[in-house]
Amino acid sequence: MTRRDPDDVFAWLDTLAEERGRAGLRRQLRPRRSDSDLLDLAGNDYLGLARDKRVTGAAAAAALRWGAGSTGSRLVTGSTELHAELEYELARFCGTQSALVFSSGFAANLGVVTSLGGRGSSIVSDSFVHASLIDGCRLSRAEVAVVGHADPGAVEHALTTRRTERALVVTDSIFSVDGDLGPLPELAAACRRTGAGLVVDDAHGFGVLGDGGRGAVAAAGLIGGPDVVTTMTLSKSLGAQGGAVLGPRRVIRHLVDHARSFIFDTGLAPASVAAALTALSVLREEPERATRALDNAANLANGLRAAGLAASLPDATVISVRAPSPEAAVTWADDCRAAGVWVGCFRPPSVPDKVSRLRLAARADLSEADVERAVEVITRCAPPGAAAS
Amino acid sequence: MTRRDPDDVFAWLDTLAEERGRAGLRRQLRPRRSDSDLLDLAGNDYLGLARDKRVTGAAAAAALRWGAGSTGSRLVTGSTELHAELEYELARFCGTQSALVFSSGFAANLGVVTSLGGRGSSIVSDSFVHASLIDGCRLSRAEVAVVGHADPGAVEHALTTRRTERALVVTDSIFSVDGDLGPLPELAAACRRTGAGLVVDDAHGFGVLGDGGRGAVAAAGLIGGPDVVTTMTLSKSLGAQGGAVLGPRRVIRHLVDHARSFIFDTGLAPASVAAALTALSVLREEPERATRALDNAANLANGLRAAGLAASLPDATVISVRAPSPEAAVTWADDCRAAGVWVGCFRPPSVPDKVSRLRLAARADLSEADVERAVEVITRCAPPGAAAS
Ligand SMILES: Cc1ncc(COP(=O)(O)O)c(C=O)c1O
Ligand SMILES: Cc1ncc(COP(=O)(O)O)c(C=O)c1O
Repeated sequence: MTRRDPDDVFAWLDTLAEERGRAGLRRQLRPRRSDSDLLDLAGNDYLGLARDKRVTGAAAAAALRWGAGSTGSRLVTGSTELHAELEYELARFCGTQSALVFSSGFAANLGVVTSLGGRGSSIVSDSFVHASLIDGCRLSRAEVAVVGHADPGAVEHALTTRRTERALVVTDSIFSVDGDLGPLPELAAACRRTGAGLVVDDAHGFGVLGDGGRGAVAAAGLIGGPDVVTTMTLSKSLGAQGGAVLGPRRVIRHLVDHARSFIFDTGLAPASVAAALTALSVLREEPERATRALDNAANLANGLRAAGLAASLPDATVISVRAPSPEAAVTWADDCRAAGVWVGCFRPPSVPDKVSRLRLAARADLSEADVERAVEVITRCAPPGAAAS
Repeated sequence: MTRRDPDDVFAWLDTLAEERGRAGLRRQLRPRRSDSDLLDLAGNDYLGLARDKRVTGAAAAAALRWGAGSTGSRLVTGSTELHAELEYELARFCGTQSALVFSSGFAANLGVVTSLGGRGSSIVSDSFVHASLIDGCRLSRAEVAVVGHADPGAVEHALTTRRTERALVVTDSIFSVDGDLGPLPELAAACRRTGAGLVVDDAHGFGVLGDGGRGAVAAAGLIGGPDVVTTMTLSKSLGAQGGAVLGPRRVIRHLVDHARSFIFDTGLAPASVAAALTALSVLREEPERATRALDNAANLANGLRAAGLAASLPDATVISVRAPSPEAAVTWADDCRAAGVWVGCFRPPSVPDKVSRLRLAARADLSEADVERAVEVITRCAPPGAAAS
């Protein structure tokens, strides 16, 4: 409240940064080159489509034809025929009445949770859900109950003891850090018994799980249900950028009228829309990509576990390997990288349980030799204390 | 809480939709074609760069070279050398220590407000700011005071009576609906007197205001200040997609460590990054685009006012024209479109004051004839009661 030197206004950030540094929790951006020859186990390009020539060619052609940007909100100039086509194809592929494309999966989650779970409703959320669902809950003004991870009994208890008529359950399908699959059938049953809607973020399931990669919600037999809404991202299996919501027509229409992250946001760039559209058609023609990604994940995890590391058993493509400390995780990831293998390194606050780990993502286009090399390098670089106990 | 038919779970949305319909507030997506020959006054492509061949060519080349998507969070695989180059060039062009690229302007605003204004701090916000700043305030857990539009006295009062040490003032530069410029120098002075930081969303000022299009914050002499943070979008003057934050190095570093909409979001697609980078270099080489956009806006507004319409006097490129009702605004916009002129139509809840209006955006590439035709058509289609009172 006192006049102070303008230089000091943001000086508190330096103190915070020092604290983070001492705890091993600083982040650093490391821009990559286009010709990096690292073996990439860090990205989310599960089907190996981000650099597929058909996909990048479609992106390039769309930029030239439609322009570099969509020039406005989807409600104004930001909807092109490409957007409509992608929405049609996503809904048709997955088997929902309707679909809506957002500029990111993050925006899709914000839009759905705030629009379906407003004031006077209840939201029950798994405690490990993605940050964008958490922020959606915080923004929603609903009564939010956060329950233990993968605990459908706790969800049902929260639903039956709620004080509002309307309720929503929100969960990831594949949880983004450990790669485990949430109990979708049990959650759906709890919703049905208590009149709640179910929102599933299928960011890491779409493209790899389910018949032909239709995703975890399809695999659970829930897709197309009148009380089920699926969110996804175009940035992982589809190798592009953007997000989408799949669900009943009335839900999609409501999002168009209500979702702030849809209305007040520029429409997705045509190049990204076209890339996702082409990636979807490649997936349809080459469904074996989904199986290959899953097989590679299983082989990678088994190899790491056989080598004594605390690797999770993947339900899809994501594997986590526990590290003894944040610093150890960073060093481990750095050493792997120096040896040619790029792995993710997740530390607080990007992990739900304060445990630092490596995060690996298998891809359809890994060879057997790639998997073997990854296992060898990750094992060789493991810090003391990394063995599974 | 009672078991109910799953078909009924989201039935409340139909009731809401009917209410919206009766109030004239339904939204409809109208996908555009790539060869539309409408005169576009609805989009935000202020410099006419979204379809500039240099810009679209750069987008296409980047998709082919770097891939359709960035494949991960900026903290993992989603930072390319292109991202780093754009950050460097934006900071250099505007004169700040540092810059950070987000996947959208919406995400940039969420990131800044939640990261600089957390628990134990105060945020004072103009009541007309963009939805993404509002949502940032809601998410921030700060003590938020919303004051009247363009009222620096009220801002200073809120700052001097705050109960926290740390404080932030948030404002748009050019407000997105009416196109008026906020009182940046007065707000900055109030911040300096009270030790608060200033966050300015320059989405509609960057590229058109200030020396060479360096934006409203530069025009006010505030850019580069140690207590000033500017957010912007790559989707308007730069014709692409994405957002950016410009400010002191310590702020940018904090965002990398803390901003959830940065950390938990896939990095911007390479094509969009490259498009923005090239658009920035075009702006540097052809600064007259900024002036032309401003001149066209002034001519358009003057023409409409001379014809008796309630058009705002633009401080940049955005003009609003008041309509007597939401329905009248929709019909007006539809009639203009049928006559070949595409204008935006803003109704509640997308307006801060419940007044429906047309929203026009001038562009650098409008000819005199375009402006004349726009004035003629908008005037001819005006509903009864549209005249300025
Ligand atoms: C589970 C989950 N949901 C949503 C998102 C956000 O999607 P996007 O990156 O497209 O914003 C991510 C990752 O980025 C994710 O892992
Ligand atoms: C003032 C203002 N801020 C932020 C945004 C959001 O930017 P983006 O569309 O890149 O998300 C917009 C418009 O979309 C805007 O008008």
